[in-house]
Amino acid sequence: MQPIQAIRWDADQRSVRIIDQRRLPGEFVERDLATLEDVREAIRTLAVRGAPALGIAGAMGVCVALAPHVALDRHAFLAMARSAATDLVATRPTAVNLAWAVQRVLRTGARTPGPPASILDAMRAEASAILAEDQVMCRRIGEAGVPLLRDGASVLTHCNAGALATGGIGTALAPIYVAAEHGLRVTVLATETRPLLQGSRLTAWELGRAGIETTIITDSSAAARMRAGDVDLCLVGADRIVANGDCANKIGTYALAVLAHHHGIPFYVAAPTSTIDPSLPAGEAIAIEERDPGEVLSLGEVRVAAHGARARNPAFDVTPAELISAIITDQGIFRPPYAFTVKGPEGHSFVASASDL
Amino acid sequence: MQPIQAIRWDADQRSVRIIDQRRLPGEFVERDLATLEDVREAIRTLAVRGAPALGIAGAMGVCVALAPHVALDRHAFLAMARSAATDLVATRPTAVNLAWAVQRVLRTGARTPGPPASILDAMRAEASAILAEDQVMCRRIGEAGVPLLRDGASVLTHCNAGALATGGIGTALAPIYVAAEHGLRVTVLATETRPLLQGSRLTAWELGRAGIETTIITDSSAAARMRAGDVDLCLVGADRIVANGDCANKIGTYALAVLAHHHGIPFYVAAPTSTIDPSLPAGEAIAIEERDPGEVLSLGEVRVAAHGARARNPAFDVTPAELISAIITDQGIFRPPYAFTVKGPEGHSFVASASDL
Repeated sequence: MQPIQAIRWDADQRSVRIIDQRRLPGEFVERDLATLEDVREAIRTLAVRGAPALGIAGAMGVCVALAPHVALDRHAFLAMARSAATDLVATRPTAVNLAWAVQRVLRTGARTPGPPASILDAMRAEASAILAEDQVMCRRIGEAGVPLLRDGASVLTHCNAGALATGGIGTALAPIYVAAEHGLRVTVLATETRPLLQGSRLTAWELGRAGIETTIITDSSAAARMRAGDVDLCLVGADRIVANGDCANKIGTYALAVLAHHHGIPFYVAAPTSTIDPSLPAGEAIAIEERDPGEVLSLGEVRVAAHGARARNPAFDVTPAELISAIITDQGIFRPPYAFTVKGPEGHSFVASASDL
Repeated sequence: MQPIQAIRWDADQRSVRIIDQRRLPGEFVERDLATLEDVREAIRTLAVRGAPALGIAGAMGVCVALAPHVALDRHAFLAMARSAATDLVATRPTAVNLAWAVQRVLRTGARTPGPPASILDAMRAEASAILAEDQVMCRRIGEAGVPLLRDGASVLTHCNAGALATGGIGTALAPIYVAAEHGLRVTVLATETRPLLQGSRLTAWELGRAGIETTIITDSSAAARMRAGDVDLCLVGADRIVANGDCANKIGTYALAVLAHHHGIPFYVAAPTSTIDPSLPAGEAIAIEERDPGEVLSLGEVRVAAHGARARNPAFDVTPAELISAIITDQGIFRPPYAFTVKGPEGHSFVASASDL
C-alpha cells in the first residue's frame, strides 16, 4: 500500500511533482516545480517538508535548474550546477539532508564524462536513486517494525513521520501501513502536535486517506489515554539518533516517552539508519533549535496571547535511550543498550536536520 | 495585590460588572449585566467562567432579575425569584457552583420577612457574602501556599485557576500573587492549555498585568523544561477533589503530575475546601465530560484537521493522589495520605462543575 507519493518526477523529469503540504488537509493539490526558484520557494514555505523528502527535493531540484542549459559547455554547465546547489542548500541552511542529497548529485555530475546532456542524465539517475533508496528504506522500516504490531493494536504517534515526510511510506507510520497490507487492524491516536499541528493536519489526513482509523487528541491528553488503557504502544520518528541511542525528535516526544514508561507501554522510535549520528556520544550534545515564539503565541494567523506576552518554542526535545524500548530501522530492530557506530549511505553520517519540520 | 476583579456589583447593585473573558487578551472590556438575559448570555458564552466566578454570577444574577419587580406582592416576587433561579441554573446545567450559589440566595430570600424590597436587600447581601467568602478563601489559599515558594522560584501552572476564575486572587495563582506582595520574585511557566488556550489567553494576561514574569509554553514542552531544570514546582487548580485525594482538573493536569514525579519536582494542587467532594471514594468515580471534538479539530474558527477526521476531547483528567505532593486549601495544607471528610459552606458538598472551563 503506497498511501500517497509526497514527491516524485513529472513524466519527462523536467519538474518535481510535490503534494503541496501548505494546502493540506483542506485541499489536495499537486504542484510541478519547474524552475530552481519554484523548488526553493516550495522548500522555504514548507510546501515540501520532512527530512527525507527535503533531500529528494534538493537532488531533483539541481536537475530541474540545469535542464534548460544542456547547450552550455561542460565547464559552464558544472559551474551552474554548483551555483544551483549552493542556492538550494541556502534555502534551509540547517537542513542537513538537503545538503547531503544535493552534494551527492553534484559529485555524480562532476565525475560523469561527456557533454552536459550525459551529465544531466547521470544526475537525474542519481536523484532517482535517492528517491528509490528512500522508498526501500521506508519499506524496510515498515517490515522490521510490523512484528511489534498485533491485530487490534492501538498506536500513539506524534507529529508526522509518514509518507508526507518521505519519498516512501514514512518512518514511524511505515509499520502501520505494512500492518494494514497484512490485513491487521491497527488504529492510531495522533497527537495534534502544537504548535504547527503536523499531527492533526498531516498524519490524520494521510492515515485517513489510507483507510486507517485515526483519532486526533490534544498533546496534553495522551497521558489520560494511556491511563485509560487506550494505548498499546507508541511509535514516533527521530530527527537525530546519537551513539548512545538518545533521540532528538519533535518537541513533545520526550513527554510521551516518560508517560509511556510510567504506564508500562512500549515506546518505539522508527528511523532510517541514516538518521544515526555516531559522532555525538549522547543527547546533551544535540543543539535544540528555538523557533519563533509567534508560532506559540498565535493560532495560525490569529494572535491568541496578550501583546507583550513571551513564549518559548523549542522545535525538538531529546528522549534519553533508557526510555526507548527499541529503535526500528531499515537494518532491523535495535534494542538497548544502544551503541551506534553505523554510517549512512556512502559513509556519510546522514543527520536529519534540527530545523526540519 | 488584587490583580483584577473578574466579577462584582456595579455601584447601585442593580447590575453585575464582569470582565468579558471572550474579549481577552485582545481587549479589556468590563460589561454591566443589567438583566437576567444579560447574565445568562454571559454565562452561556463564557464571558464569565471559572467555578467560583460562576457561583457569584448566579447569585448576583437572581438579584439583577428581581430588581425591577419590588412592587410585586411577596408571593409573586418569590415566585419570580424561583423562576429566575431556574433559568440561571439551566444556562449551564452541570455547573454545580452556579446551582449551589443560586439556591443559597433563594433560600435567604424565602426566609427573610417583610416586603420584596427587604427580601431583595437580604438576597443582595447574601450574594455579596458569597463574593466576600470567595475572596477570603482565595487569600487563605494564597497565604497557606506561599511558604512553598522560595525567592526566585519558577512555577509551572496549567489552564487558568487565577483571579479571572474567582471573585478573588484565584486558587492556583493565589500563592504566586501573595509571594509577589511579599516581595519574592517568582516567575511562571504557563502551559497554553489546548484546546481552549486558557493558559496563553488568560493566565499569561492576568499575571502579566500584575507584573509577574510569565512565559507561555506548549503543553507538550513542559517535560523538556522540567528536564532542563527550569521548573521548581507545579501549581494547578482542581475542579473536584475526592475523599482519597484524587483530583479532577483540566485535561493535561495528570500528564504534568506524572512528568513532575519523574523529574522529582513537587506537584501541588490549590483549591478551596468547597471543591472537596468526600461522597466519592476515589477518582475512578468521577465522570469525565467529553466536549465537542470541534474544539480540537479547529483553531478558533478555522478548521485544521481533514474533514471526516475524528477527535476526542475530554475536558478533564484525574490525577491520582500519590502524584500530589500536597493540596493547598483555605484551611491549610493537606499532605498524603489524604482522607477528606470536610464539607463546604453550609454543610453543602460544594463540587466544582465537571463542565466548567
